[in-house]
Amino acid sequence: MELLDKLNWRYAAKAMNGEKVAEDKIERILEAARLAPTSSGLQPFEIIVIKNQAIKEKIRPVAWNQSVITDCSHLLVFAAWDTYTEGRINYMFDLTNDIRGFKNEGWENYRKMLLSTYPQKDAEENFNHAAKQAYIAFSQAIIAAAFEGVDSTPLEGFDPAAVDEILGLREKGLRSAVMLPLGYRKQDEDWLVNLEKVRKPMGDLVTVIE
Amino acid sequence: MELLDKLNWRYAAKAMNGEKVAEDKIERILEAARLAPTSSGLQPFEIIVIKNQAIKEKIRPVAWNQSVITDCSHLLVFAAWDTYTEGRINYMFDLTNDIRGFKNEGWENYRKMLLSTYPQKDAEENFNHAAKQAYIAFSQAIIAAAFEGVDSTPLEGFDPAAVDEILGLREKGLRSAVMLPLGYRKQDEDWLVNLEKVRKPMGDLVTVIE
Repeated sequence: MELLDKLNWRYAAKAMNGEKVAEDKIERILEAARLAPTSSGLQPFEIIVIKNQAIKEKIRPVAWNQSVITDCSHLLVFAAWDTYTEGRINYMFDLTNDIRGFKNEGWENYRKMLLSTYPQKDAEENFNHAAKQAYIAFSQAIIAAAFEGVDSTPLEGFDPAAVDEILGLREKGLRSAVMLPLGYRKQDEDWLVNLEKVRKPMGDLVTVIE
Repeated sequence: MELLDKLNWRYAAKAMNGEKVAEDKIERILEAARLAPTSSGLQPFEIIVIKNQAIKEKIRPVAWNQSVITDCSHLLVFAAWDTYTEGRINYMFDLTNDIRGFKNEGWENYRKMLLSTYPQKDAEENFNHAAKQAYIAFSQAIIAAAFEGVDSTPLEGFDPAAVDEILGLREKGLRSAVMLPLGYRKQDEDWLVNLEKVRKPMGDLVTVIE
């Protein structure tokens, strides 16, 4: 399967060379993230695409000084909703009705059920749930980058509160969840590029109940 | 990009026809999940593959009675570590040293840093972190299924404690995070199959900082 070839090709680039990624590639990577399935179809996150070098330089010190932050071409920040609100839930249900061109009783009852449960939950619990949905899209973006021959670095090692502050995310009801620098590997400075990929053997990962 | 075609083809199947998925397809879908990148490479989850019909029938009532649970071919349960332990962290670092054939000081220091921070954290926080990594693999499995022409249903609508009990997960230090029934759509009973896919427009999802 071509997908497995791409998954074996990709790795977490530890050094990038500053080369720019063509915008049409970025668009397809973002489209893959946009198409990600999410719980109840709510897509409870946004993606901040940072091309601005000064902003990347502000983020680098709050991200363990990792060079890929400034040497990438586009820095994607996946920012999840800080909680579920009535407005956010209604937006997606209304959009669905608009696109499909009809209202459906079962779907409207489902809307009511979400409205009567999600906004009432603890914001931290809601953020954690939203962040998981962001990870589905994040994963699709990683794979899409591999299909485009673009390197990426799945990156959790940063101070989320500091990144939220730099990007003004809290004011928008968002919290940074995970990042994905996109760019091209700098072969001679990347300690990981030539090392063998390590994964658990299938027997330690999977249990089959026959 | 072929990936985008597959992402547009897939949808969350709401009815399946019971047809079995060939084992070589299942193997490639699991291989895609195995290759998923995870935080510090820890792969903090396992995948339970349920072929047993009696077990599927036990799970269905604690999963909102969704028919895909029993009408799928293979039910994948992504179960995340209930917490990070010294043993679990050491397993992955030792495996890495074994596979790469050498010890590296920077890598050993990184091991020490994780050992001195992760196991000490609140188990709930650790489980949430582990579950996010499971979602990366879950997402890769969804995509792999699409490449195999296999339908799947990303499924969070279940009682995790009840599923943990049925599968005996807590005794293994695992907690169910998300499920993925794999099988083939039952076209005439699936209310979603002919409806248009709904996603936020790109402008509502993405903000570019030039």
